[in-house]
Amino acid sequence: MFSQTDFTYMERALALAARGMYTTTPNPRVGCVLVKNGEVIGTGFTQPAGHDHAEVRALKDARARGKDPRGATAYVTLEPCSHFGRTPPCASALIDARVEKVIAAMEDPNPSVSGRGLAMLRDAGIDVRCGLLANEAYEMNIGFVSRMTRHRPWVRMKVAATLDGRTGLPTGESQWITGADARADGHAWRARACAILTGIGTVREDDPQLTVRAVDTPRQPQRILIDSRLDVPLTAKILDGAPPWVFCGKDVEPSRAAALRERGADLIELANEHGKVDLPAMLGVLADRGINELHVEAGHKLNGSLLREGCVDELLVYLAPSLLGNAPGMFDFAPPTTLDPRPHLKFHRIDRLGDDLRILARFVETHGAASPDIN
Amino acid sequence: MFSQTDFTYMERALALAARGMYTTTPNPRVGCVLVKNGEVIGTGFTQPAGHDHAEVRALKDARARGKDPRGATAYVTLEPCSHFGRTPPCASALIDARVEKVIAAMEDPNPSVSGRGLAMLRDAGIDVRCGLLANEAYEMNIGFVSRMTRHRPWVRMKVAATLDGRTGLPTGESQWITGADARADGHAWRARACAILTGIGTVREDDPQLTVRAVDTPRQPQRILIDSRLDVPLTAKILDGAPPWVFCGKDVEPSRAAALRERGADLIELANEHGKVDLPAMLGVLADRGINELHVEAGHKLNGSLLREGCVDELLVYLAPSLLGNAPGMFDFAPPTTLDPRPHLKFHRIDRLGDDLRILARFVETHGAASPDIN
Repeated sequence: MFSQTDFTYMERALALAARGMYTTTPNPRVGCVLVKNGEVIGTGFTQPAGHDHAEVRALKDARARGKDPRGATAYVTLEPCSHFGRTPPCASALIDARVEKVIAAMEDPNPSVSGRGLAMLRDAGIDVRCGLLANEAYEMNIGFVSRMTRHRPWVRMKVAATLDGRTGLPTGESQWITGADARADGHAWRARACAILTGIGTVREDDPQLTVRAVDTPRQPQRILIDSRLDVPLTAKILDGAPPWVFCGKDVEPSRAAALRERGADLIELANEHGKVDLPAMLGVLADRGINELHVEAGHKLNGSLLREGCVDELLVYLAPSLLGNAPGMFDFAPPTTLDPRPHLKFHRIDRLGDDLRILARFVETHGAASPDIN
Repeated sequence: MFSQTDFTYMERALALAARGMYTTTPNPRVGCVLVKNGEVIGTGFTQPAGHDHAEVRALKDARARGKDPRGATAYVTLEPCSHFGRTPPCASALIDARVEKVIAAMEDPNPSVSGRGLAMLRDAGIDVRCGLLANEAYEMNIGFVSRMTRHRPWVRMKVAATLDGRTGLPTGESQWITGADARADGHAWRARACAILTGIGTVREDDPQLTVRAVDTPRQPQRILIDSRLDVPLTAKILDGAPPWVFCGKDVEPSRAAALRERGADLIELANEHGKVDLPAMLGVLADRGINELHVEAGHKLNGSLLREGCVDELLVYLAPSLLGNAPGMFDFAPPTTLDPRPHLKFHRIDRLGDDLRILARFVETHGAASPDIN
């Protein structure tokens, strides 16, 4: 169905999409390549929200080069949109440009619009094909797919631990378990996330800035703090710079809430029956606010709660080649009462980073997540 | 210094040596290939103790094929021995056969005989070279090298755990954390070990046979139990079959000792100042008894003690893609008081086995271990 040439151009479109990795939120990362008579006449990728999508960018690029996109084939990593958002629909732009053929990697995951863009194109007489390198396209927008299909972000929990699964000393010291390569890699994962979430325990122990520093990015992810009783010190670094979102429980001290609002924090009261932050409901709020990928860097208590409440989609584990014995572990939750022989996760990727090991493991039951075989 | 052909023949010699992986103990695993005029005229590998070494086997093989080894090149994975043990020296056999050239992967690690075999050959006018694929040869006999150079076995500690470093339920249930591939692989590591060691905690909780079952082997490793107070039940499976060695502390109940001896156990009293088994001294006893590779499968308490007392050379960790939260961990020892940023181990090999991950990690400070660059 697809030729080797098609693969090559779609790979190029995916590489273009990746250039929007840190910037397109809340929009998906999309790349577009326009090919005419065996020549690439225009390329583009999604610009920050409110600006051009990939297809429009590629059409403008072609015209800027003095090339006419009429009769061209458009390779796009996601179905062109069919609706007016902050920008006009990309499907219309392709129709108006009279491209001859559109090859999309995958359909739009949003069930209410899925297939409409392709249908618009087909109705306009354009030859449309879909499903080329769909898995790669899915991985690129795993968070967007999650938000569209499950109304929750894709939640990636990062942990750095020793080979025996320990994250720091009993005193709380934990900053330098892994090496420089792993720490820089951790910042790249922060950078691609729409938001970074931590808990009050980590703020009190480590006082992190929770910003991206080790890699270049024009956009800092939204910072989110889970702090049921609003215990965060007003001097905490997370309150510096762009204001964080702070989720709290009910009946918080009004003066504390006022002081935090004074510091700019966006307070969101969202309590469960125990008066703590309702974590699954929080994911819905984050989806409403356009968070596709959520990066969690928290301590073993909040980690344990998020896991226990089914709020985690994948673990990003850095293992350092050392041991800490009876030091605090990764996840604080009660063990099951019997051993379930089924694997609960799947090792998705294993890589070495300097002296350390990086393990990306995904939950097998993804709480209703869209399958990677999205097409 | 070495040609591509030399590499090819030495790789063949190493593959032959590997055929003795489960059987040569306490002797090293050695392979020998005899080449004459571009033709392999004889091959051999070390037979069980008391029988032919690799070189003699290869010479016999050549003669059985009607080939004259005179003028041949012998590729051997270890320096030919120069002394009468249970068999005559291999260096003499090669000299008597009038081979023209000997290429050895590495010298004999035993400091008191190292280089003597090669010197004997050189004195007889044979062209001798050493150091081809030395690392591979070292890995093959890492335990023999350890025993010869450090007077202690190479100690490999096996642990199966979940991704969060937990080895079983608080109830003690732990049998099926990893999958079938990992369990079979664990038995292959058992099979190549000279001895398998466990502690009284594991015997009481799991009552293991501690035998090799999942892979074929003509030899069962010696089983060793650490049981300071001789608490092992007389019905324990480790007392069935070939008698185990049982290390105990001092002032053990004489009637218990008598009962265990009755069951065939070889009791070795070896107490440290606390009355517990002196683990570093035990390694010396095991070296005296010809143990090259020691495979440890114990619980977190004995694991922790062995690590704390510097008795472990490498960790063989199987990680399953699941989580157990606050369940027992791998190693019971007090964490350090400050974080040492240096890695204490090095990830030596990372492999996937079915759904699981296998990590072979070596201590960087190997307690005086011979360097892999043994040549």
